Amino acid sequence: MINSFNLINLIQLNQLNLTQSTINQYMKQLTELHGLVSRAVDTLTFPEYPADLYEPISYILALGGKRLRPALLLMACDLFGGDVESAIEPALAIEVFHNFTLMHDDIMDKAPLRRGKVTVHEKWNANVAILSGDAMMVEANKLMMMVDDAILRPVMNVFNETAIGVCEGQQIDMSFEQRNNVEIDEYINMIRLKTAVLLGGTLKIGSIIGGAGEEDAQLLYNFGVNLGIAFQLQDDILDVYGDPEKFGKQVGGDILSNKKTYLLIKALELAKGDQATELGNWLSIEQFDAAGKVKAVTAIYNELDIRQYAERAMQNYAERAFDALDKINLPEDRRQYLRQFADNLLVREY
Amino acid sequence: MINSFNLINLIQLNQLNLTQSTINQYMKQLTELHGLVSRAVDTLTFPEYPADLYEPISYILALGGKRLRPALLLMACDLFGGDVESAIEPALAIEVFHNFTLMHDDIMDKAPLRRGKVTVHEKWNANVAILSGDAMMVEANKLMMMVDDAILRPVMNVFNETAIGVCEGQQIDMSFEQRNNVEIDEYINMIRLKTAVLLGGTLKIGSIIGGAGEEDAQLLYNFGVNLGIAFQLQDDILDVYGDPEKFGKQVGGDILSNKKTYLLIKALELAKGDQATELGNWLSIEQFDAAGKVKAVTAIYNELDIRQYAERAMQNYAERAFDALDKINLPEDRRQYLRQFADNLLVREY
Repeated sequence: MINSFNLINLIQLNQLNLTQSTINQYMKQLTELHGLVSRAVDTLTFPEYPADLYEPISYILALGGKRLRPALLLMACDLFGGDVESAIEPALAIEVFHNFTLMHDDIMDKAPLRRGKVTVHEKWNANVAILSGDAMMVEANKLMMMVDDAILRPVMNVFNETAIGVCEGQQIDMSFEQRNNVEIDEYINMIRLKTAVLLGGTLKIGSIIGGAGEEDAQLLYNFGVNLGIAFQLQDDILDVYGDPEKFGKQVGGDILSNKKTYLLIKALELAKGDQATELGNWLSIEQFDAAGKVKAVTAIYNELDIRQYAERAMQNYAERAFDALDKINLPEDRRQYLRQFADNLLVREY
Repeated sequence: MINSFNLINLIQLNQLNLTQSTINQYMKQLTELHGLVSRAVDTLTFPEYPADLYEPISYILALGGKRLRPALLLMACDLFGGDVESAIEPALAIEVFHNFTLMHDDIMDKAPLRRGKVTVHEKWNANVAILSGDAMMVEANKLMMMVDDAILRPVMNVFNETAIGVCEGQQIDMSFEQRNNVEIDEYINMIRLKTAVLLGGTLKIGSIIGGAGEEDAQLLYNFGVNLGIAFQLQDDILDVYGDPEKFGKQVGGDILSNKKTYLLIKALELAKGDQATELGNWLSIEQFDAAGKVKAVTAIYNELDIRQYAERAMQNYAERAFDALDKINLPEDRRQYLRQFADNLLVREY
């Protein structure tokens, strides 16, 4: 059986040769960038009037979250020797944009909670959440425009392409709920658009601000997109096979909600005869014992080697990310920094 | 009694001295620009996939409407000697942006129809309308960016300021529904943001593309904003005092829905004693004869000279528009062109 922990570690050991002190050094750096981002988010203020337009923006931004994306934008800028101070507004733009998509997604998903707090459409109402989200999109554009004239157009082009990709991804994801015949390729394309292009776009914008050439910026984009796909596939795997304590979520949540993950789509593709019937039954019954459903569906996944398929797919995208990374014209220690980052993202919860 | 038709005509006659042939010449020109816009909208295509993201965009754009704003953007460009062909994408950006706001407003207002056709959130669903609207905002940004590098930042700055103003105006308008103590100044500020800044912003962007200097672009903006406020006040007056055949809407619609227009806000401010009680009763009762309510509230407006107050306010903003216009550094015949346009906008339906 292929074990993704070992496989990823193998790649890391072959490619990184990092000592523990190098790792710590880079970890500290990312922590510093996180600190910069958090302080910048705290200083972000909006007009007081009209209150129902701007208070929800401050509210959702104050909920926190990992703020990974803005820190990565600064990291990408830093990698190419850019001044991270000049990248702070664009980093905030990415954070505001990301939270705009969350505010609208929460309406669409009828989500009651976001990061353990009441969602905007529940605390206020759906109209407020629609309109505040719209205003956030404009505020994100204003922040993103705070770059030098020389890179204004390329930066905004990446931002717009990223934004439209995220909209497409969200629409495709919603359409999957109404369908029973989703193919693996469609699924990969959906997660690419819904989550991975924002990671790629964020890194690309940071690198442009940092002074990267077009080719390096595109390679960093490819690194980010493929890493993002690998990360989402890992998330699908962890939902079923993760250690609940490290994963921080209930194991089997995707199974209980019939969510069309890589695992379920692959199982629907491979299951034949009785297995197919049993899987179909678990998907259609509305009254069930939760633990029983998770156990039964996981057993079908195990019989079909679904975990191994998913891990190979994840591995495939991780390798594409590392391939792009290897081609970036940067000193080796900086490429190692990125590998270290990818490593931390991909093997954190097994 | 002050009659707005006469007053406006007086201003026109004093300021314009237009012969009928000049008028016809300019009318033709605006018709040509409308034609350009319509053909450009027809050629605007979006990706086929995902269908539920892009089909609603084509659907709402195909509903038509007056397409006044994009034609005005071309007109403003033309006024300053610019090449209207180079302003077509920005004109489309304004039309796409405007329709994005309509798509989201229709969800918020639970409107079943838009231009006589089923609204997007009714034909598809609210989630589709939210997300397609979001995508339209990105598409509008992409179209607006299709200007020369030298004016990219000023154009996008005006566009972003306009967009955030429209969001603020919509939020303030929604908040009025929950309030009984709206003041005239707040109301004017709301219509300025909700409808007038888009007219001003459209003209300003067109003028920048046409090569106008900063001062002239700002004067044209002021012309547009004040004209927009005057236009909205005229709309409030026409709803009660307009000729139903020319107005094209049911007279008294605002009265029946208790809409907080200039007229109602002024009447609530001025009514005392029995009048105030009677007006309050008409606003609070839920069962009533429609014609009876329109007649009774109109009678109160008449007793309080509300029409005259409204017409004076409208006149005030029309004069501000003409004052800004007079200061624009353009040949007199071009200023006349703009006066002619304002004239057509302001006295069309009495």
